[in-house]
Amino acid sequence: MSLLVVGSVAYDGIETPFGKVDRILGGSATYISLTSSYFAKQVNLVGVVGRDFADEDIELLKSKEINLEGLQIDNSGDTFFWSGKYHYDLNNRDTLDTQLNVFERFDPVIPESYKDAKFIALGNIEPSLQGKVLDQVNDPDFVVMDTMNFWIAGTPDALKETIKKVDLLVINDSEARELADEPNLIKAAEIVRDMGPSSLIIKKGEHGALLFTDNEIFSAPAYPVIDIFDPTGAGDSFMGGMLGWLAYTDDLSAHNLRRAVIMGSVMASFCVEEFGPGRLKNLTEKEIYDRYREFRSLSEIPEVV
Amino acid sequence: MSLLVVGSVAYDGIETPFGKVDRILGGSATYISLTSSYFAKQVNLVGVVGRDFADEDIELLKSKEINLEGLQIDNSGDTFFWSGKYHYDLNNRDTLDTQLNVFERFDPVIPESYKDAKFIALGNIEPSLQGKVLDQVNDPDFVVMDTMNFWIAGTPDALKETIKKVDLLVINDSEARELADEPNLIKAAEIVRDMGPSSLIIKKGEHGALLFTDNEIFSAPAYPVIDIFDPTGAGDSFMGGMLGWLAYTDDLSAHNLRRAVIMGSVMASFCVEEFGPGRLKNLTEKEIYDRYREFRSLSEIPEVV
Repeated sequence: MSLLVVGSVAYDGIETPFGKVDRILGGSATYISLTSSYFAKQVNLVGVVGRDFADEDIELLKSKEINLEGLQIDNSGDTFFWSGKYHYDLNNRDTLDTQLNVFERFDPVIPESYKDAKFIALGNIEPSLQGKVLDQVNDPDFVVMDTMNFWIAGTPDALKETIKKVDLLVINDSEARELADEPNLIKAAEIVRDMGPSSLIIKKGEHGALLFTDNEIFSAPAYPVIDIFDPTGAGDSFMGGMLGWLAYTDDLSAHNLRRAVIMGSVMASFCVEEFGPGRLKNLTEKEIYDRYREFRSLSEIPEVV
Repeated sequence: MSLLVVGSVAYDGIETPFGKVDRILGGSATYISLTSSYFAKQVNLVGVVGRDFADEDIELLKSKEINLEGLQIDNSGDTFFWSGKYHYDLNNRDTLDTQLNVFERFDPVIPESYKDAKFIALGNIEPSLQGKVLDQVNDPDFVVMDTMNFWIAGTPDALKETIKKVDLLVINDSEARELADEPNLIKAAEIVRDMGPSSLIIKKGEHGALLFTDNEIFSAPAYPVIDIFDPTGAGDSFMGGMLGWLAYTDDLSAHNLRRAVIMGSVMASFCVEEFGPGRLKNLTEKEIYDRYREFRSLSEIPEVV
């Protein structure tokens, strides 16, 4: 099945305790597309870049057979640029610079050839733009949405309007508590699901993730990464691995959603091993499935006899 | 196999967002003994209480066939009393009152009949006293120790001396980071294991627990408790369920340690459902094993085909 990916395409400046890069390919749509391309038969990207966007980055996306028909090139300005510095513990970061550039005027136009996509990934952009994407597509089977505290606090009404229309919302634990106004995560999940999405994933960083569906909760472990090199893009890689797997298998059972959560975790665990999307360029099938098996053995609870 | 339990026996005053009790049975040795008694054939308690200790509390412990030969009754004063108030999110609490009373002079004397215990639970008391227990026993198979940030900061040398002698250390995530002086939890675990214990459990509260052994890491999920009534004793119940299971099965394989971690999690999840040890008085075998199975399904990752 084909997957429609909408989000930012950007350049990032990143400083971590392990090093520094001034400018590297980034953005939610980039990470989601790269990671989902390992599974989904067809990844259709929608985004905008500026006149400075490098040919080699176009070539990288094309080498993964990502369809760029929906990538707008706006020659009136430069590509969205963000830079930040991670703290010693890598759990927090300070934004040093944000230049929206052409992204400020981003208007997601869905090409005709994308409109029948069955799976849709709405990367973290303004909720009203996410809603606009959904107004243009025909009859998707499964819509997944990311968001952040900035929109929860800043545009709560637009956010709740869009949330109503999605099948799965992916947020982190502090966002879930803020959106539901409830400190208990399990109660918060119930409140958020009552807002619309039948499924909810709460990402907990180094503590793994929780998947809430109609009748069950799935607790996914975090991969025990000793050397997190750069956390940038981990959340988007999670979303890409997950949606790529769902589009590939075309199976929306609770059972297969669990597999999708682990495939997302697998891709996120690779993402943090190098700066930017470096590690996501040339993964092998064996590396991916081996890590999936590592996740299984990490959390396997033996039966009691 | 018999289990030796050393720790505090106390009265607690507890206030949570759901209610308040002025005085209820508590203490690490109490919770560890009650929970381990569901599994271990013989639980031998060592602790001290004062002249105010109630007959009904003696009767409760006896009803669980807990051996009280090592429970000193010191008529020169009252039983250790602690009171605290939990915050709205239940993750933090303020201590309102601490009266050490007879516990201030606690000198753990191990009765002759206890000295051949194969499994030993050192509840959270002064590290030098924990060491003193180990000096008195003959040839234990498996020694498990709890501690807290108070001892990590206050008596680090005595703590490290005792840690050297134990097989399994049980601490929470912030304590592991503090003890190892390392923010990455996986690295911190390596550093702590280099201090002596071949196995380490890091408790992460609402995020479950991690078990580190020689060749593997096990990630245990947390039970999704909607209504945590009172967290008091959860950590000790974890230790009791775990050690009770090990003493019952007499199997120290990595495989069975995983089961023990889940049995600990099971008992902790029951503990928080009522004030104090209320829920731990009359659990049925069916309730315990049903919850074990809930933990299994909570974290089960399907194979990929």
